[in-house]
Amino acid sequence: MKYIGIDIGGTTIKGIIIDGTAKVFAHDSIETGERDGGNALCTNIVTLIDRMLEIAKIDKSECKGIGIGCPGLIDSKNGKVVFAGNLKLKNFALANIVSEKTGLHVRLTNDANAAALGEAKFGAGKKYRDSILITLGTGVGGGIIIDGKLFEGGNSAGTEIGHTVIDEDGEPCTCGRKGCFEAYSSATALMRKTKAVMQENKDSAMWNTYKLETVSGKTAFDYVGMDAAAKSVVDWYVKYLACGVTNLANIFRPQVIMLGGGVAAQKEKLTKPVQELLDKQIFAGQGYAGVKVVTASLGNEAGVYGAAALMM
Amino acid sequence: MKYIGIDIGGTTIKGIIIDGTAKVFAHDSIETGERDGGNALCTNIVTLIDRMLEIAKIDKSECKGIGIGCPGLIDSKNGKVVFAGNLKLKNFALANIVSEKTGLHVRLTNDANAAALGEAKFGAGKKYRDSILITLGTGVGGGIIIDGKLFEGGNSAGTEIGHTVIDEDGEPCTCGRKGCFEAYSSATALMRKTKAVMQENKDSAMWNTYKLETVSGKTAFDYVGMDAAAKSVVDWYVKYLACGVTNLANIFRPQVIMLGGGVAAQKEKLTKPVQELLDKQIFAGQGYAGVKVVTASLGNEAGVYGAAALMM
Repeated sequence: MKYIGIDIGGTTIKGIIIDGTAKVFAHDSIETGERDGGNALCTNIVTLIDRMLEIAKIDKSECKGIGIGCPGLIDSKNGKVVFAGNLKLKNFALANIVSEKTGLHVRLTNDANAAALGEAKFGAGKKYRDSILITLGTGVGGGIIIDGKLFEGGNSAGTEIGHTVIDEDGEPCTCGRKGCFEAYSSATALMRKTKAVMQENKDSAMWNTYKLETVSGKTAFDYVGMDAAAKSVVDWYVKYLACGVTNLANIFRPQVIMLGGGVAAQKEKLTKPVQELLDKQIFAGQGYAGVKVVTASLGNEAGVYGAAALMM
Repeated sequence: MKYIGIDIGGTTIKGIIIDGTAKVFAHDSIETGERDGGNALCTNIVTLIDRMLEIAKIDKSECKGIGIGCPGLIDSKNGKVVFAGNLKLKNFALANIVSEKTGLHVRLTNDANAAALGEAKFGAGKKYRDSILITLGTGVGGGIIIDGKLFEGGNSAGTEIGHTVIDEDGEPCTCGRKGCFEAYSSATALMRKTKAVMQENKDSAMWNTYKLETVSGKTAFDYVGMDAAAKSVVDWYVKYLACGVTNLANIFRPQVIMLGGGVAAQKEKLTKPVQELLDKQIFAGQGYAGVKVVTASLGNEAGVYGAAALMM
């Protein structure tokens, strides 16, 4: 049996056809298309699928169905995009439309959920039954795998781990609350903090060699060994990230927590100090129900593999 | 089919025999017994079960098994009490021993989990597939029901919703972290805050009519309408409780969150303002995947009903 995966991004739609062992039969992409209420998006998804079936020389009937990962707020139960600002979609019955156009069964989930399932099935989480992927990008997203299955929240309404307050009355968050995990552990938050610390430390190496407008999520990590200001930024970032990681460890008791997204490119520079803090903070100690912190391994491919895995 | 439920408390073990509709065939209790490494505890559990079978005139063979709720850190998968300070138990194979002594299948879970399952099956959560019970007592415990089933964490290691930080570097918690949900929303925290505010407001009605040593979790609520100091305590308590409630709503998307334990005796005085804050804070608004805040309805009986429900 074959499985079709579709990962919708802001500019590109990625597609894949794989079997249950992740053997790839086709891997292609197409532009996301006009923000015209979803028409171009659906047409492009179908074009991409037809093209992949041709490349793979596979008949539709050999495919169990189509899994789709999409950014935004997703109602998985009803296959609807409730809201996706970037794609200009609102209450859009994406799964139904693609299903009608292709004659195949379609399952829709949030793109971070798809990535979590991809990592859990074929990536850094494949040895474990219970795992969590935390994506550290523009925001903090993620997905939760319980006993090998994607947990999408009650009524599949979508889990929002980035929007849990870890510092009441703290930094303002895009969701309207103050002190959310996302407001400390996103790349956006890391850049905000880096810039603030640079401005407060005009004798630092960071200030002397970087322009504020070129600061990225890498900057503080690049200077951490030679600049006390940079170290203070990294320590701050690690502390809050470890707080959010420990909260999730205490609630879900996964065997592994995987860090993905841009900031996770720091690999051991990030996972090692977070693991050390988790070891100290986890309820009842690591000796009881230990949790490993690792870097996600599939990078930008996690979403499209996970989308296909939605049908497995 | 009948189901035996056992709820172990610090001084009393409660027992029940019910059918799948919660019809009661026996309901009895016995003292918990000596802290002698579990011998008296196990003997008393078996005595209680034999007594109930006699009262109900039921043969063991009519019972599907025994569910047990026990305080402390519980390894449900292996039926072990990992640690229960109050009962002086450590790595105690409770389920196996009771199973050997009775010849019946035994399932063990944490007492807060049992209470959550009881409320979900037969109490305030019975209309819903997804619910969370938060118990506001000496600590903050609770249990999570996903799609009608108790979620005990990866490897059934136990969920610890009270030990999630909501205010980094905040109030010290018994678990060693600072700023845990439990350090703000337990009855213990409420009493601590009430006393602190009384000492800061020696012109308040609370200060003038209460002795510090008689303060309880009720004090501030009793004075809330006539004393600005008391109102400030209740507002503080509601604010942090709503923070923890909203975090759980955003992660799990249950249809209902039930408040139990001593402080929940305030009923609407507590649920109404928490609901109002949740309505403002919940991700994507209540119109999308709404969450109701209600008072648990089974009180101290939730645990023993839920223990029996472990076998259903």
